[in-house]
Formats: sequence, C-alpha cells, structure tokens
Amino acid sequence: MLPRGRPRALGAAALLLVLILIGFFLFGGDLECERREQGGPGSFRCSLTPRVPPDGDLPADHGGCNRSDCVPLRPLPPKCELLHVAMVCAGHNTSRDVITLVKSMLFFRKNPLHLHLVTDAVARNILETLFHTWMVPAVRVSFYDAEELKPQVSWIPNKHYSGLYGLMKLVLPGALPPALARVIVLDTDVTFASDIAELWALFAYFSDEQVIGLVENQSDWYLGNLWRNHRPWPALGRGFNTGVILLRLDRLRQAGWEQMWKLTATQELLTLPATSLADQVWGSLLGGGGQAQGQGEMAVSAQDIFNAIIKRHPGLVLPLPCIWNVQLSDHTLAERCYSEAADLKVIHWNSPKKLRVKNKHVEFFRNLHLTFLEYNGNLLRRELFGCPSPPPPEAEQLQRALAHLSEEDTCLEFRQQQLTVHRVHITFLPHEPPPPRPHDVTLVAQLSMDRLQMLEALCRHWPGPMSLALYLTDAEAQQFLHFVEASAVLSARQDVAYHVVYREGSLYPINQLRNVAMAQALTPYVFLSDIDLLPSYSLYDYLRASIEQLELGSGRKAALVVPAFETLHYHFTFPNSKAELLALLDAGSLYTFRSMSSWCCQRPSPSICHTPQAPTSPASVPDPPIVIACRSSRMSSTRTYPATMGLLPSNTSLPCSSLRHPKAEPAGGTLPFALAHTPQTLEQPCHFSCSVI
Amino acid sequence: MLPRGRPRALGAAALLLVLILIGFFLFGGDLECERREQGGPGSFRCSLTPRVPPDGDLPADHGGCNRSDCVPLRPLPPKCELLHVAMVCAGHNTSRDVITLVKSMLFFRKNPLHLHLVTDAVARNILETLFHTWMVPAVRVSFYDAEELKPQVSWIPNKHYSGLYGLMKLVLPGALPPALARVIVLDTDVTFASDIAELWALFAYFSDEQVIGLVENQSDWYLGNLWRNHRPWPALGRGFNTGVILLRLDRLRQAGWEQMWKLTATQELLTLPATSLADQVWGSLLGGGGQAQGQGEMAVSAQDIFNAIIKRHPGLVLPLPCIWNVQLSDHTLAERCYSEAADLKVIHWNSPKKLRVKNKHVEFFRNLHLTFLEYNGNLLRRELFGCPSPPPPEAEQLQRALAHLSEEDTCLEFRQQQLTVHRVHITFLPHEPPPPRPHDVTLVAQLSMDRLQMLEALCRHWPGPMSLALYLTDAEAQQFLHFVEASAVLSARQDVAYHVVYREGSLYPINQLRNVAMAQALTPYVFLSDIDLLPSYSLYDYLRASIEQLELGSGRKAALVVPAFETLHYHFTFPNSKAELLALLDAGSLYTFRSMSSWCCQRPSPSICHTPQAPTSPASVPDPPIVIACRSSRMSSTRTYPATMGLLPSNTSLPCSSLRHPKAEPAGGTLPFALAHTPQTLEQPCHFSCSVI
Repeated sequence: MLPRGRPRALGAAALLLVLILIGFFLFGGDLECERREQGGPGSFRCSLTPRVPPDGDLPADHGGCNRSDCVPLRPLPPKCELLHVAMVCAGHNTSRDVITLVKSMLFFRKNPLHLHLVTDAVARNILETLFHTWMVPAVRVSFYDAEELKPQVSWIPNKHYSGLYGLMKLVLPGALPPALARVIVLDTDVTFASDIAELWALFAYFSDEQVIGLVENQSDWYLGNLWRNHRPWPALGRGFNTGVILLRLDRLRQAGWEQMWKLTATQELLTLPATSLADQVWGSLLGGGGQAQGQGEMAVSAQDIFNAIIKRHPGLVLPLPCIWNVQLSDHTLAERCYSEAADLKVIHWNSPKKLRVKNKHVEFFRNLHLTFLEYNGNLLRRELFGCPSPPPPEAEQLQRALAHLSEEDTCLEFRQQQLTVHRVHITFLPHEPPPPRPHDVTLVAQLSMDRLQMLEALCRHWPGPMSLALYLTDAEAQQFLHFVEASAVLSARQDVAYHVVYREGSLYPINQLRNVAMAQALTPYVFLSDIDLLPSYSLYDYLRASIEQLELGSGRKAALVVPAFETLHYHFTFPNSKAELLALLDAGSLYTFRSMSSWCCQRPSPSICHTPQAPTSPASVPDPPIVIACRSSRMSSTRTYPATMGLLPSNTSLPCSSLRHPKAEPAGGTLPFALAHTPQTLEQPCHFSCSVI
Repeated sequence: MLPRGRPRALGAAALLLVLILIGFFLFGGDLECERREQGGPGSFRCSLTPRVPPDGDLPADHGGCNRSDCVPLRPLPPKCELLHVAMVCAGHNTSRDVITLVKSMLFFRKNPLHLHLVTDAVARNILETLFHTWMVPAVRVSFYDAEELKPQVSWIPNKHYSGLYGLMKLVLPGALPPALARVIVLDTDVTFASDIAELWALFAYFSDEQVIGLVENQSDWYLGNLWRNHRPWPALGRGFNTGVILLRLDRLRQAGWEQMWKLTATQELLTLPATSLADQVWGSLLGGGGQAQGQGEMAVSAQDIFNAIIKRHPGLVLPLPCIWNVQLSDHTLAERCYSEAADLKVIHWNSPKKLRVKNKHVEFFRNLHLTFLEYNGNLLRRELFGCPSPPPPEAEQLQRALAHLSEEDTCLEFRQQQLTVHRVHITFLPHEPPPPRPHDVTLVAQLSMDRLQMLEALCRHWPGPMSLALYLTDAEAQQFLHFVEASAVLSARQDVAYHVVYREGSLYPINQLRNVAMAQALTPYVFLSDIDLLPSYSLYDYLRASIEQLELGSGRKAALVVPAFETLHYHFTFPNSKAELLALLDAGSLYTFRSMSSWCCQRPSPSICHTPQAPTSPASVPDPPIVIACRSSRMSSTRTYPATMGLLPSNTSLPCSSLRHPKAEPAGGTLPFALAHTPQTLEQPCHFSCSVI
C-alpha cells in the first residue's frame, strides 16, 4: 500500500496547492478588497466594488481571507511601456481643468505618456502653447479637431451645443490612429491620486469578449426610481460611469462599434418619452446621465448611450474597482467605496457644483484636488529614469546652453534666466476677441501678483481690448482666478485676455512677459503701457481717432508717445480734462512722471520702436511731449527678487539723452495722459528698466 | 499501470506547483527587481538592491523571470495599524528638515502614525507648537529629552557637540517605551516618495534572528580603499547606511543591545589609529561614516557602530531594497539602484552639500524634495477614512464651532477666519535669545511677503532683540529663508526671532500674528510697532534708559508713546536728530504720520494697553506726543484679500477722539521717532486697523 499511499499523499498535496493557488489568484484579483476584513460589520462589501478576476467572472464572496493568504496582486505594465490617454477638451475653463488633471497624472506616473486631445480651436491654442513651453520629458501630445468630429454626433439631440463635446467619446475608435489598440479615456473633471500605470494594468484582466472597462455608477440615477415617472435610459443595475474608461479600440473597431452605438442610440431615442429631457436636469444633480463632461449639457450623454449598449451586451464590459472613479456627485454612494478601500485612485468631481459639492468628506477630496491645482508644474519637468525618452529638441538645446554657462560668471543668474523657458498658459480666463476693426488698439502690459489691484482701475480707464501677461506661481494663478470672479468690474469684461506666465527663477522676465502679451494682441495697434500707469478715460477713443486721422494704416510707421504724470497721494481724483490736470500740476498734487526723483534712466527699452504694431500719440500736438517711464525696483509678490531690471534685449540703442524734454500743449485741450502710482521704495538699490511711452 | 500512472502525474504536477509557488515567493520577495529584465544589458542587477525573501536568505540570481510569472508581492500592514517612527532632532535648522520629511510622509501615508521625537529644548519648543497648531488627524507625537540621553553616548569621542545627537539612535531601544516592539528610525534628511506603510510591511520579512533592517551603503567608503591609509570602521562589504532603519526593539532589548553596542564601540575605539578622525573629513564628503545626522559631526557616528556590530553578527541584519534609501552623497553609486528601479521610495540627502550636491540627476531629486518643501501643510489636515482616529480635542471643538456658523451670515468669512487655527512655526531660523537684562525691550511686529524688504532697514535702525511674525505660505517661507541667507545684514543678526504663521483663508489675521510675536518676546518690555515704521537709530537705547529712569520695573504700569512721521519720497536720508527732523518737516519732505491723509481712524486697537509688557516713551518729555499709526489696506503678497482690517479684538474701547494732539518738544533734543513708508494705494476701499504707538 505504501507505493500507492505516497502518490495519493502527493495527489492530495497537489490538490491543496491547486486550491491555494486558485484562492490566491481569486483574492489577489480582488484588487482592493484585500483589506476589506478590517471594515466594520455590515459594511457594503463588494457590490459597489466589482472585483476583477483574471478570467472576468465575478467570483462569490471570498469570506475569511486574512492577511497572510490574501496578498494582492498588483501587476504593473513594463517599466517603459507607453500609455495612451484620450480626453475631450473645449473652451477656456475646461482647458484649466485638463491641466490640473494632467498635473495629478504626471505627479504619480512612472511611464511615458501619449495624450490624445480632442479639442476645439480655443483649447488647442491654449494647450499647444502650454505643452510646448512646459517641455515635460516623455510626454507626447496629439491634437484632434473636434470640429471635424461634430457631424458624427450632431444628430443626437442636445440642449446645449457644448453637449456635443461630451458625445465625442463615442467616436474615439474611429478618430484615434488605427494602430492604437488601447486607450484610457478620461473626463476632464477627474483627479489622480495614484499611478495611472496601475489603471492601465487592468487591461490585462479583459476577457476575449470584453472591450470596455468601467466603474459602476455611485448613484441611484439609472435605477429609475428617484421620482414619479423618472425614466432614465436603460442600464445594467446602477449602470456605469464614463468618467474613467478603458477602451480596447482594436476590438471595438472589429466589432463594428460605430454601427452598434448609432443603432442603439437611434432605437432608444425613438422610444424616449417627452419628459425625459426634463429628467436630465435632476439627473445632473444626482450624478446620473447628462453631465458626463461636466459642462451642464442636459440631453443625451455619451454615458447614456454607453449604458444602453451595455444593457444589450453585458459581456462587453469589465467592471473596474470603484476606487478608480470615486464619484463625488451630490447624493453619491461613494462613501461605501472609499470608507473601505485602503487607497483612492481617481476622484471624479461629477457634480455640476464641482468642488462646492455637499459631501461630509468634501474637505478631504478638495485637499487632494487643491494639491494639484496649486502644484508647481515646473517640478514635473523631471525625467523618467531608465526609459529611452529623449527630451523635446528645444529642451535638449536648452540643456546644452545651460551646461555651457560658467559657474564663476557673475551674471550667471541673469544668463540662466535668459535661457529659461517659462510655462505659458495663454487666455487663462474666458476671452472673446473683439470684432476686427481697422484702427483698434490693444492695451498691452505685464504684472505680478502685487499689482492685481490695478486691474479694476485699468478696466475703468480703458474700455478697449487688453492683453495682459501675469507672472505667477501655480498657486497664485488660482488666487488670481478667485480675484477676477469676485470682481464685478473684471467679470463683466470679455475683451481682456489674461496670459499666465509661470514663475521660475528669481528675476522678473519683463521682456518675455511683454512679448507674450504682445503676441496675443489681436488688433492692428497696441498701446504698450506699464501696469502702474492709468490711461486717461478718453485715451482709447483718442488713439483710434488719431490713427485714422494720421492715416497710419497706410503703411506709415510711427510711434506715438503719450505724456505721463505721477501722484504721491493715497486718495486722488483722476482729472477729466487737461485743465483739471494742469490745475493739479500747479497745486503740486501732480508731477510730470519721475520729475521729482533723482533716478537716472540708464537703460531705455526701445521695444516699442521695434514692434510692427506701433503705439500712437496724436500728431495734432506740435512737438509731442516725450515721457520716460522708469519702473522702480519691482515690488513683486516676492520682494526676494534681487534685481528686477528684467532682461532687456541687447539692442538697447536709444540713449536717454536723445530724448527731448516735454513741452506743454496749450491748456484746455484733450491731450491724453497716463498717471502713475508711486511705487513704495526707500533706501533700495537702483535697479530698474525703462520704456519710452 | 493506469492507477499508478495517475498518482504519478499528480505527483509531478504537485512538484511543479511547489516549484512555481517557491519561485513565486522568491521572485515576489525581490520587491523591486520585478522590472529588472527591462534594464539594459550589463546593468548592475541586484547586488546594490538586496532582495528580501521571506526567509531572509539571499537567493541566487533569478534569471529569466518575466512579467507573467514574476508578479511582485506587496503586502501592506492592516488598514488602520499604527506605525511608529522615531527621529532625533536638535536645533532650528534640523527642525525645518523634520517638517519637510513629515510632510512627505503624511502626503503618502494611509495609516495612523506615532512620531517619537528625541529633541533638544529648541526643537521641542518648535515642534510642539507646530504639531499642536497643525492638528493633523491620526498623528500622535511623543517627545523624549535628548539631554537625558546624552550621558549614555557622551563618552564616545566627537569633534562637535552636535555629533552626540546622531549617536542617540543607538540608545532608542532603552529610550522608547518598553511596550514598543517595532519602530522605523529616520534621519532628518530623507524625503518620502511613497507610503511608509510599504516600508513598515518589510518587518514581515524579518527572520527570527534578525533585529535590524538596513539598506546597503551606496558609496565605497567602508571598502577602505579610497586613499592611502584609508582605514574606516569595519563593515560587511560596502556596509549599511543608517538613514532609514527598521528596528525590532523587543528583540534588541532581549538580546542585550546596550551591552552589545557599547562593547563593540569600546573595542573598536581602542584599535582606532590616530589618523582616523581626519579620515572622517573625507568620509563625510563621500557619504561614508561621520555624517549620519547631516550635522557635520566628524568623529564616530552611530552608522560606524551599527556597521561594526553587523560585521561581528551578520545574522542580525535584514538587507532592504536599495530604493528605500537612495543615497545622494557626492560620489554615490545610487544610480545603479534608481536607474533600474520602477519606483523610488525614499531619497536620502546624505551629502553635507544637501540639495547642492553634484549629481547629474540632482534636478530630478531636488524637484521631489521641493514638492514637499513648498507643499501647503494645511492640505495634510485630511482625515483617514475608516480608521477610528478621533481628531485632537481642539480640532473637534473647532469643527463644532464652524458647523454652527450660518452660511447666510454676511460676516461668515470673518467668523471663519476668527476660528481658524493657523499652523505656527516659531523661530523658523536660528535664534540666540539675548542674555536677560532687566530693562531690555523687544521690537514686536508682523508682516507678509510684500514687506520683506523692510527687514534690513529695520535691523539697521533697531540693534536690539526683535520678534517678528511672518504670514506666509509654505512656498513663501522658503523664499524668505533664501532672502535672509542672501542678506549679510540679516544673516549677521542672531537676536531676531522670525515666527512663520502659515497662511490660510483670505484675511490677514493681524491680531493673531501680533500675539504670536508678542508671546515669543523674551524681554520684560516690548515695543509694538508696525512693519512700515522705521525707528530712529537711538530709540532702542533711549527706551531702555527711560525704562530705568522712570523706574517702570517697580510695578508701575505705563504705556509710553513714540511720535511718528511719514515721507512720500523714494530716496530719503533718515534724520539723525530732532533738528534734522524739524528741518525736513519745514521743507515739506516729512509730515506727521497721516496728517496729510483724510483717513479716519475708526477702530483703534488698544492691544498695547492690555499687555503686561508695556512699550515705553520717555517721561522726560513733558506731555508726550501721541501718534496714531493707521495702516492702509494691506498690500499683501496677494492683493486678493478683500479686506485686511484684521480681526480686531471686540474690546476696542479707546475712541480716536480721546487721543490728544502731539505737542512739539524743543528742537535739538534726542526725542526718538519712527518714520513710516508710504503704502501705495489709490482708489481703494478704506479698510484699515489702527494702533496706538
């Protein structure tokens, strides 16, 4: 019997091992359930957190797994595998959201990324500039024109035009390159709290049939019992949320996805009752349908169509762990997920109220979001070790130039700053360019945080278009946003373009800022001013009239100069006419600009003379007065700038002495002028830059 | 034959499974080697990254493991397990380091933490205030007096007194509570890039014999062949670095650790050649011995002693994966580790040059470090979900008070701010309190970033002690640090205490700031001033003489008032005498403070009258002039503050009208005075606070 007994024992041992191994894979497959046993009694175990076993079947409850026999499996993609992410982005505000999302993704990522951005013209303009100047290693960005994709979805009823962008998730299999087999699709209102490679790794759990990975909805919207006659689109149980999607593009294309979704949408639309569109208003508040892009669209959403398809073909979907899309809608059930999970992976702000959503834990989620909202994006320029990811050619060139600098050079800091490429976020806030007019003038200026309070006054004094470059940190950009939102004067103006240039280094790059603001001016003429100067109320009209009168449009190049004055008083009533101005001058309340200071203008910046768009001053004034506007050491939000003379171009050829002294025009005229604030300085070193205005 | 064949097949299958399972555990145990196969050819495989198999033996090279059969095991401790961390911290600078380290730890942590801090009096004072005001949920802090532990290590030769603190890691088994069985010990110059729970989980890999987990040294220091007669302390191979230690305190106590290390140290010290201390100078540059705490100690370090013990008892140590202590010393071999690892876990700035270390990847590591240096610590006040971790009682009380506020209340923002507990970092920079003198006066003031440039002038005008509260963000605090380091005037002063109050909310908490600065003044008298006022050069001496002369020390309560003037000029020569002052007044270069503004002082702050430490003005001046110093709307670094009147105490009982007008003293006297800068404001709402000085 012994000869038989031994193999039997071995057989039993083998069986045991097989069982252990199966248990191992099953429990291991439950990616985030491994700590579930520490949860309180009666907790909402796995139904909101579908487990992802390797074979795609949902196993029965795993009962008493404990730490030693229930080790999670967390396979990651190979170290340098390129991960593909697709997003749909339209407009100024969504562009800001995308950047925060991308910052959170880059913070945790360890793989090269390829971003596929479906954008309108506005978002493309913003994001192209941003990524070009950001120069993050191992990040590639491709743009796809949303305009071209619109016809494919525009037949679907939508209350609001912007709703179309949300629907574009449906056409990604056709829009993205045919060779692209897998992609992660994200809403712009999600925030990552972990490495996206872990999400990508879930592709390994797809069965042969599955084509789409989704997290279950964390609201009761699709259950259809929220109120009388509440009839949402069909869905499997609670349905799925489409804020985070894993798409097997190759299989979708093979399976005839385009026909599939169009057929489903058409058939469901035919049976749609008249009340359903109204339902969507409620739905958006409950985190159900109708707000997949968070842009307030109130009609059929991509999410509705995805759910209707899944209801018909349940085998297509791989349910993902809830932690990959923690949905913070108003009446969310997400707490069942995150209170048990060891770890949150992705937060989804899918309430129309966004960060102001009512939720007892909102402070926690807001802090995570604020982390990346305020995170210094420059720090994300770090390379990926061990991955062959050559930096963008510009970055490499810069690296070489920086390496050539000598550490002994006393001007090292200046040279470094000159080589610095600042991240630029153009039109940070919504902006409507003015209609093209032949003699229009844009006011161009640059400022840092400490000059924000000038903006309201400037808006009151200059009713025309403005292009302003702001030198800010990421955190300050958010403060700036709140500042504008809180100001009725600033919120009312759509013709002021604000361009954020992100701070790096200790010097104030005055010319880089001016160039950014100049490049974004859309009128044929610009008025280059200093943020401390307030134009007279009539200047905008006066300049346009003068341009027309002087026929500057006919190819004649001229720089017109506007006289400037300054006051030292706290409270000051701005003069409405030249007579009032002269009276104030006589009374000693005003001075000609810098006439009372002993400062010397050593380095005038002739940038104004070299611009194709020349600022103007009326030629009707004989011998136009010339004023030198010297900026004192910049009182920036950080007074730590050792010097703030900016980086003047090397071709500063116009010496101070060549400027003539102003000669007064007869009193009572309407001569435009600008008034300067008095910068507060005492006993400071004499660092300044000058501009001829 | 069939009946025999089947069991045989089963047996073979069992064997195969056993092998697979063993392979699984072995390769899984190689915690970070799982992606090694993607590394280039000839890469430095595992010798700098010792694998941690469950049994503690180092297995042979695992060869061709690929992704499917080489899945890493990453067990984590149970969700709410309390993790213990010990650090030794002494002095102002190290306290700042500890806070950055703690921020990085808190950012990634998901478990409750208990910090065990061995501190000197300075660090305890700073860190106790910080953690008390930080109120991070699920973080407990215990302090241990370094003074008491000194006798246990002071017999070991040390060039510098501070070296003793580094040695205190040796006495932790005796110093920490006897019930504490396991602890992670950290140097203050490490930064976390991952969840500390993953490190704690490595305790599970300790064999019964192992008591200490360490990462191999990433320099050749202990190999002893760096130069002629280079004779470092004995070590196993490259030796181990003690920046990150896992300690089994229970087993160390059982094994008679105290006797063990003292015996080893004594015996090694006896054989130490005379040249060895000189070696340490080199060693510290090479990331070897002698700089375990990064405080420049040049003699025997705890690391030397740990290594000498391990050389004698190699079975005590569990080698940890290299990624848990990536050592950025000058000639580091760490690249072999991080260029292959998928993930960095802990960075160790163990070069004396710290962030300025020469390393081709230093930019990458610096970015990670800067992330937490500048990270808004307020965001770390987030709770831990699902762990029964009651917040500190004060935090709970605050939560209740905040919950009681009505959202309709128009003063909501003010009330919220009043309830805000700001994080406070007292004596942010090194500070030597002045020797106690009976009539000494501390200048007390508060400021935000935009007033930094006043500090140098203030230091020139006030040679005595100062206590200044700065209202800053975490990022601004770093800018402030650089500002002071770059200023010869400020660096030279050890008697100026800077207290950082971290910004939160949109209002400037003027009284909270003043109270922080007041509480830290160590002299019997304070001179409460505004940051915009410069005292006359003689004021400090004059006040002390007057206090003595007026016998204010004998219990008499008096508030002395100093006259103030203002100038509007950019360049201004400060008057040295009353005669000069009067001449300037006559010439219109000076005004009595606010005499030229139409502002009304509506809410004088009588805080000065209520303080036990009364500011002084000489009684020799008959009818001392009274000056009201009104601050204009604060030009803070963020002009976004909607109002900056501060939060005045409700007992503002002293009306403006009760103040008498100044009467001039005869010219030529030495009457002290203060000069104000002109804040730059125009057309701003009239929000301000007042103080009687």
